[in-house]
Amino acid sequence: MSITLETAPTLHVEAAGIRFAYRRLGPKTGIPLVLLQHFTGTMDAWDPLVVNALATDRPVIVFNNAGVGTSTGTVPDTVEQMAIDAETFIAALGLAEADLLGFSLGGFLAQVLAPRTKVKIRKIIIAGSAAKGGEEHLLQVVEDAFAKGARDVRLPLFFTPSQSSQDAGGAFIDRAAARTVERDPDSGEAVSNPQAKAIIGWCAETDPGHASLQAIRQPALIVHGSDDTMFPSINAYEMFKNTPDATLIIYPDSGHGALFQYPETFVSHVKTFLDA
Amino acid sequence: MSITLETAPTLHVEAAGIRFAYRRLGPKTGIPLVLLQHFTGTMDAWDPLVVNALATDRPVIVFNNAGVGTSTGTVPDTVEQMAIDAETFIAALGLAEADLLGFSLGGFLAQVLAPRTKVKIRKIIIAGSAAKGGEEHLLQVVEDAFAKGARDVRLPLFFTPSQSSQDAGGAFIDRAAARTVERDPDSGEAVSNPQAKAIIGWCAETDPGHASLQAIRQPALIVHGSDDTMFPSINAYEMFKNTPDATLIIYPDSGHGALFQYPETFVSHVKTFLDA
Repeated sequence: MSITLETAPTLHVEAAGIRFAYRRLGPKTGIPLVLLQHFTGTMDAWDPLVVNALATDRPVIVFNNAGVGTSTGTVPDTVEQMAIDAETFIAALGLAEADLLGFSLGGFLAQVLAPRTKVKIRKIIIAGSAAKGGEEHLLQVVEDAFAKGARDVRLPLFFTPSQSSQDAGGAFIDRAAARTVERDPDSGEAVSNPQAKAIIGWCAETDPGHASLQAIRQPALIVHGSDDTMFPSINAYEMFKNTPDATLIIYPDSGHGALFQYPETFVSHVKTFLDA
Repeated sequence: MSITLETAPTLHVEAAGIRFAYRRLGPKTGIPLVLLQHFTGTMDAWDPLVVNALATDRPVIVFNNAGVGTSTGTVPDTVEQMAIDAETFIAALGLAEADLLGFSLGGFLAQVLAPRTKVKIRKIIIAGSAAKGGEEHLLQVVEDAFAKGARDVRLPLFFTPSQSSQDAGGAFIDRAAARTVERDPDSGEAVSNPQAKAIIGWCAETDPGHASLQAIRQPALIVHGSDDTMFPSINAYEMFKNTPDATLIIYPDSGHGALFQYPETFVSHVKTFLDA
């Protein structure tokens, strides 16, 4: 039986004084796809349906960045330092080359990592994210979501109010809860405060001529939800227009968690992109 | 050996006084995908690589609309009448239900046909197109393209100036030329004049509240090239924003003929959409 996200053992690698927790799925060979997680998310916040399907034909690695979940170290309050920490982790695994899938905050990291050279990045997927200077409504949207008192804050945060989106959200929440052993602890303020500062700082930064996007020479797949309240979909269109080799995909009736609302479609799109 | 676009016999069906020429590929059963062609295009202007791949798991039908190629009748000068002619053709085949793939002008027809009821439309794909009131540069772009003196006017018209786009364009032109028997005659002014009037009229029309797009209740896949000079990509984004159940995909470094520049990727996206 192959290893799944629900059953993969937690592994560790140490570098730059940080003990990184990670899990690895899929075949031993091939270019690994490294997943970069969203605001306050741990390894357990990924959708097993998405990750397991991606891992059928390539190695997939999920990890906790410095200070998150079961990784040691402290959470930095800049995207740049988070990206360097992620790069330290990837380099410590000894990977010659990697693809990146960054969701939300993780998409910021992917943008920073792509033009760097310590780890060779082949292709990047940026889901539910924004460019430097992008439009964000993080604090308002998170506050509104908690005020709704849903059984899981991600239901209002990641999905639209429509019945079909909420149903898909409920199914995602259930899938992400399926793992029972070695679950990561939920993130507290030691994670959320510096991460929020990093997200808001990234979007407050100006980037004349979109130089950061222009520096991304790899093929990029930009995926977004039609009604993302945290980072409106115009962010995705603007990123697409300013990234030299980008494909844009936006899903209907979907929010910040569009990739978990349409898991099969998203996986198909990612595989088509990575295999092209 | 299965029938291909290069070898499929030309069939005919008569309705409303028009003898429509068409070709049919793929399995006998399943919901057929009917292709709606671009400005001045005949059945022979489709990409065999795209059409043959689509036909591996569903019936695919290409046809010449009234007055085009080997079909009788006259070319109307409105999109609405062209759509009614196409509907007449589809109904004459006795199809209970169909999917539509409309490219450019054909995408206008798909938009008109979707909310109509004479033929039940299940899903639509709109490639390189625009909504009513959209931004078009037809005459200027066609004039500029002819002035370039390329070996085929579609090289400057459908592809960007980049080497990789032009190379992909050349391969498309070769593929589309592979059929040697029963080729349709090239279109003259009896086709181009009324079609140009229809395209310009469609884009000159205002459509308050995008009522026409709002009337499309079917799932819609909107596909576009990043640098479409005829219908700039903002058309696709605007269509996406105003169509209730739409997915948007825009390809990198591509023009009006993006679907033929990335044939494998486009086919994968269409199949993922139609099978979802």
